[in-house]
Amino acid sequence: MSLENTTVNKSFDGWTKHFVHRSTTLNCDMRFAIYLPPQTDKGQRVPVLYWLSGLTCTDENFMHKAGAQRTAAALGIAIVAPDTSPRGEGVADADGYDLGQGAGFYVNATQAPWDRHYRMYDYVLTELPQLVEASFPVSDKRSIAGHSMGGHGALVLALRNPDRFRSVSAFSPISNPVDCPWGEKAFAAYLGKDTRAWADYDASMLMRKATAFVPALVDQGKADEFLEKQLRPEALEMAARSSGHPLTINYRDGYDHSYYFIASFIDDHLRFHSQHLTG
Amino acid sequence: MSLENTTVNKSFDGWTKHFVHRSTTLNCDMRFAIYLPPQTDKGQRVPVLYWLSGLTCTDENFMHKAGAQRTAAALGIAIVAPDTSPRGEGVADADGYDLGQGAGFYVNATQAPWDRHYRMYDYVLTELPQLVEASFPVSDKRSIAGHSMGGHGALVLALRNPDRFRSVSAFSPISNPVDCPWGEKAFAAYLGKDTRAWADYDASMLMRKATAFVPALVDQGKADEFLEKQLRPEALEMAARSSGHPLTINYRDGYDHSYYFIASFIDDHLRFHSQHLTG
Repeated sequence: MSLENTTVNKSFDGWTKHFVHRSTTLNCDMRFAIYLPPQTDKGQRVPVLYWLSGLTCTDENFMHKAGAQRTAAALGIAIVAPDTSPRGEGVADADGYDLGQGAGFYVNATQAPWDRHYRMYDYVLTELPQLVEASFPVSDKRSIAGHSMGGHGALVLALRNPDRFRSVSAFSPISNPVDCPWGEKAFAAYLGKDTRAWADYDASMLMRKATAFVPALVDQGKADEFLEKQLRPEALEMAARSSGHPLTINYRDGYDHSYYFIASFIDDHLRFHSQHLTG
Repeated sequence: MSLENTTVNKSFDGWTKHFVHRSTTLNCDMRFAIYLPPQTDKGQRVPVLYWLSGLTCTDENFMHKAGAQRTAAALGIAIVAPDTSPRGEGVADADGYDLGQGAGFYVNATQAPWDRHYRMYDYVLTELPQLVEASFPVSDKRSIAGHSMGGHGALVLALRNPDRFRSVSAFSPISNPVDCPWGEKAFAAYLGKDTRAWADYDASMLMRKATAFVPALVDQGKADEFLEKQLRPEALEMAARSSGHPLTINYRDGYDHSYYFIASFIDDHLRFHSQHLTG
């Protein structure tokens, strides 16, 4: 697996780096960012938090705007942030911001023309961790987090793979995508009109039937413009109550859907994951 | 003075906001950002740190990338970040990134076609603080900081107006613009070929002859790609030694010219200013 390093920036005594590699899962070149905390310079293998971004984002947004490096450095956690979809010439796309490139929804597409490249679920679950663990001074302790579409992805990946992730957290996740406009549009395109295929990618449905648990933390802004129509955290809350799945949801007065919200509470999420990653 | 609020984002229990107003100094519409810490919600008047950004930046970069809001909230400091030049139709511009729109250099231009709009020195010194102090719950305690071209601007404004600013700090400032390619190009265009007019805008020359002092802090990355050719902090260091002006310069191993460097040390700068603003 060849890995091309495109940028290196020292940050908080560690390193924020971007890479490009050929993804066999996605059948295209893929970009990701990694923050390596200073402990890795001293030969220590550190645990990894995977961060999945939201609609329209790339591998850059989180590293630029979340302000996570400070506390990741203090706690000794690496952070890996992949791009949000396959990209490039020959990769299917659509006009809207909520389907196609920049909007992979962390599923394995089964429908043409998407099925040729759009396999973000497998990419994040298997290919990316294999590459990261073979290439950087990290351990095999993993947690996962994300924002909006990426919060959905993080919850789905953790709930379906409780043996792979020690904890999961989300900001403003699309909690019940089978029942909101963003999810319905993307799932119909990527997975087809038969909604039975959608259940495996719906965090609320997965949490409702969960028997193996992954500690889960969600932060949701009460001034989020997408709260009622798209995000539906109450569905996740009810599912957790029904199955007894551990879940903390914090509703935050006045906060919106932006990275300003994420930056305000990312330290809480990093500390939450650190508790589970360093056990 | 009318002030149009374009965005509001809650951050760290305070508010990051952007505004547009008609600038009489610059003869065009101008944008700026302000961070109002939570103390202002409780009716407290807080001191203000003015932040001047570097080449190609706008009023957005610092608020998005520096991660300053967390500590500004804790210390109770407002931060005001103006755009880096006049902009818009009818405002003179040039092809390069280092002259014209996005590259105001915080001077009052005397040469056509620049003299019609490019008066960033007066704007930051007078019009902007008047507007800010009339419109927001802030006191008249001011400090000033900036990055690269904005570090040059902050140093020049403070050194020429020690009664107006309680402290000054800079990341990677253009310390001796009369003797570097960026400064020579901009000053020749804005101020004319007679270099005697340049001295009032050169931080090293100003610091060398300073008699009234403003506590000054500079951070400089040793892996900064512009260090030797454009920034010349050694000129500033020699000037401080010559006049006895208080100046701390920290050279930081491995850090470059980016916002990752600023984010890594912005807390130190905020605490430095807070000491002088809350005296």
